[in-house]
Amino acid sequence: MSLNLGTILQASAATRPDHPALRVSGDAVSYAALDRAARGIATGLRERGIEPGDRVALMVPNVPQFTMAYFGILYAGAAVVPLNVLLVAGEVAYHIEDSEAKLLIAHPLFADAARAGAEAAGVPVIWADGSEAPALDSLAGCAPLDAPHPTSADDTAVILYTSGTTGKPKGAELTHSNLLLNCAQVFPRLIPLGPDDVALATLPLFHSFGQTAVQNAMIAAGGTCVLLPRFTAQDAFDLIEAHQVTYFAGVPTMYFALLHHEGGEQYKLPSLKYAVTGGAAMPVEVMKAFERRYPVQILEGYGLSETSPVASFNTMDRPRKVGSIGYPVWGVEMAILDDDDRPVADGDPGEICIRGHNIMRGYWRNPDATAETIKNGWFHSGDIGVRDEDGCYSIVDRKKDMIIRGGYNVFPREVEEVLYGHPAISEAAVIGIPDERLGEEVKAVVALAPGQQATSEEIVAYSKEHLAAYKYPRHVEFIDTLPKGPTGKILKRELR
Amino acid sequence: MSLNLGTILQASAATRPDHPALRVSGDAVSYAALDRAARGIATGLRERGIEPGDRVALMVPNVPQFTMAYFGILYAGAAVVPLNVLLVAGEVAYHIEDSEAKLLIAHPLFADAARAGAEAAGVPVIWADGSEAPALDSLAGCAPLDAPHPTSADDTAVILYTSGTTGKPKGAELTHSNLLLNCAQVFPRLIPLGPDDVALATLPLFHSFGQTAVQNAMIAAGGTCVLLPRFTAQDAFDLIEAHQVTYFAGVPTMYFALLHHEGGEQYKLPSLKYAVTGGAAMPVEVMKAFERRYPVQILEGYGLSETSPVASFNTMDRPRKVGSIGYPVWGVEMAILDDDDRPVADGDPGEICIRGHNIMRGYWRNPDATAETIKNGWFHSGDIGVRDEDGCYSIVDRKKDMIIRGGYNVFPREVEEVLYGHPAISEAAVIGIPDERLGEEVKAVVALAPGQQATSEEIVAYSKEHLAAYKYPRHVEFIDTLPKGPTGKILKRELR
Repeated sequence: MSLNLGTILQASAATRPDHPALRVSGDAVSYAALDRAARGIATGLRERGIEPGDRVALMVPNVPQFTMAYFGILYAGAAVVPLNVLLVAGEVAYHIEDSEAKLLIAHPLFADAARAGAEAAGVPVIWADGSEAPALDSLAGCAPLDAPHPTSADDTAVILYTSGTTGKPKGAELTHSNLLLNCAQVFPRLIPLGPDDVALATLPLFHSFGQTAVQNAMIAAGGTCVLLPRFTAQDAFDLIEAHQVTYFAGVPTMYFALLHHEGGEQYKLPSLKYAVTGGAAMPVEVMKAFERRYPVQILEGYGLSETSPVASFNTMDRPRKVGSIGYPVWGVEMAILDDDDRPVADGDPGEICIRGHNIMRGYWRNPDATAETIKNGWFHSGDIGVRDEDGCYSIVDRKKDMIIRGGYNVFPREVEEVLYGHPAISEAAVIGIPDERLGEEVKAVVALAPGQQATSEEIVAYSKEHLAAYKYPRHVEFIDTLPKGPTGKILKRELR
Repeated sequence: MSLNLGTILQASAATRPDHPALRVSGDAVSYAALDRAARGIATGLRERGIEPGDRVALMVPNVPQFTMAYFGILYAGAAVVPLNVLLVAGEVAYHIEDSEAKLLIAHPLFADAARAGAEAAGVPVIWADGSEAPALDSLAGCAPLDAPHPTSADDTAVILYTSGTTGKPKGAELTHSNLLLNCAQVFPRLIPLGPDDVALATLPLFHSFGQTAVQNAMIAAGGTCVLLPRFTAQDAFDLIEAHQVTYFAGVPTMYFALLHHEGGEQYKLPSLKYAVTGGAAMPVEVMKAFERRYPVQILEGYGLSETSPVASFNTMDRPRKVGSIGYPVWGVEMAILDDDDRPVADGDPGEICIRGHNIMRGYWRNPDATAETIKNGWFHSGDIGVRDEDGCYSIVDRKKDMIIRGGYNVFPREVEEVLYGHPAISEAAVIGIPDERLGEEVKAVVALAPGQQATSEEIVAYSKEHLAAYKYPRHVEFIDTLPKGPTGKILKRELR
């Protein structure tokens, strides 16, 4: 009854050993080579004292060593703790200590934070390229592990840290079953990926979206990932053309960047068959403009680290609803519940709640946080959404981002959609600021597109024209660029 | 992290509620109706004291009530114990007692054995049609269970009793993960079943082959099963034509019966896209003759109740090797091991051993039998096979069926293949009989095709021409028809 998520690599390596699994900067890593490296790393980890059930932290950008180490850790029966490569030393130490990881595999590009963090946490570092010892290469060269460790389906495969709504980051424990079903059952029913498909892997693999929807989905399909560690529109265009990429998964800001890239209209991207987005709200105007220019339909989906992550998606076999997050995926249920976990009527806003095979085991060693989040059988997303009469879901806003102005609920996303419709605005975020009289007041923080001009008064007037009186922003602040997280999600925390 | 095999039904009911899931004698049961009935049965079972983790025995032929009850039991979080409908009262009692089932759901067609067996075991019976009370219908009408019980992926979903090599039948405990991956990951990679496919479900659903490769694979695909409770060639032809069946799964004797049915050559079966076989060795001559007549390629596979069951298969994307059982399926490893569990050279015979996500949790409350069978990480099949240089496997014979004649190993299957090549022979089984001088001697038991004649001497002479001196049968017995198990497998036990 054993199940190891590494099965997806093992199976593709068995059927098409010579097919490229990964490509980066002109080099290709075949399935056989990737599997061989992972088996060596598994043996090397064992020799360094890693036992099944232990945790190993991984702080590596989108390079082949990420995938090699990821599957090496899984093959060894240990759990992967992927870290954002931009963490500072204190954060690295926190994640290692909280997860009780026994080892950090880090990339020398982030050597300072990795070294200091690991030292503070008292664990050794393995370096992901050959420039420093001990190197991952020397582990990869160990005798290959005979077979992936027979972990049980309910054992933890990956602990994904997520900031959640409050407090310190918490580790969402995802099982082998959670992750395998998300990449190998859910995903192929949305996008029929096969061995001939080529993905541009530029979403960070340490994050749930890139990990499941790109890396793991492609490996399960036996296709090829073209790795782009640091997204730029120019590199993305070049790689899509050079490798005839068929599948692009990106956060909305990536689509926006491609759309607004100078000279971007010269690329035709005829190879693109599938495009998906998620991780943040996709402005409808961006989606429409992208689709007018390039021959692909963007499917928007929804999920969280705690849901492995894919929970709902627009699908190719039903009319896409622009601006929606689609329908619950295979084997997953969603509901819009009120504060007492009772379903609300279709069309009414409430909390998006999820249940099914994709729900995490819980937060790592945090039963209180788990009990707050998984209640009455439902995972509570913290997002406010609505369901329409066809069973299609839309996000209204993050529960925590909702502004209460004079007793009225204002959902920033609605206001942002209006702002994105203004020709001069390239990025917009709407937040609540304290107001003595109203409790909160609505404020817009915007960046203008290159060469564009607008005054605060103009933007307020424009918003007033499109929004109810209690909703439109009374304050506008201009900044050059909005602060973003690793997936391009705008960090409202930092704006407040 | 919950996973319930019932997810396959729940998901298909969510996406295509009105599509027919089951058809029998002109009636159709939609996915919504099947899901509704299963949810009602789950509630009804709860009301009768069935708790998650309990066992419920199911003695029902291929009628919609089998599938309704199967998923009702799963939805309730209990484990299904399917029973062969031909069991006699004492056997029914043994299975109920051994599995500690709390309840028997039985079909009135088998009322005598079911009633007496349940009474001896001291458990109540629910009757699968409305002719006797309490009826399954009354459970199906209960308020629908809100959601499948959140069983864990490693919980036991089904206990399949298997006679094994010796002693009383043992219950192979298959988990939700085992069975879900076999029908929803393994099977679609062999045969791309979809919602437009229609299967003829005439393999018994209480047996692993029909349960996974027909019922569960079709429900996961959202397609339609046409149920035929008792196989006859005439009914099979009629239903394939009437329902435009695209997928036929049968044991070799079914193909044989179709091939030798009077008037069978009049059917063209143009709708058939996929045909698979397993459960017993497929005589090469039968396969070739079938394919000469009908426009479909037969893919032969291999598995056991203990392996969920599919372990290896010929696939559509590699050259089929006639007479082989193909390649290990997705995520499953096979090896040919000697008595010390060391791999033998390609081409040498040894025991077929299997590991991966499809291996049972163990034999129900029988750790000794489990430890004898799952050793050094490998499930030991008891079958002797060889692997060729391409990694393709063939069965030589059942380990226990092997005849040792004067120190030489004789594999009955090889002798049977020769006998099937004789124009007068329609069925053949080769067994060992005690011999004072040689230890064992080779004996053939054969049935002649209608209108054919042959003498014992002719058959011995024919065999001698095609086989080494130590292999050909010295004794030939003629019988009208060979004894067969529920899937059509010839029961050599009974011949000995």
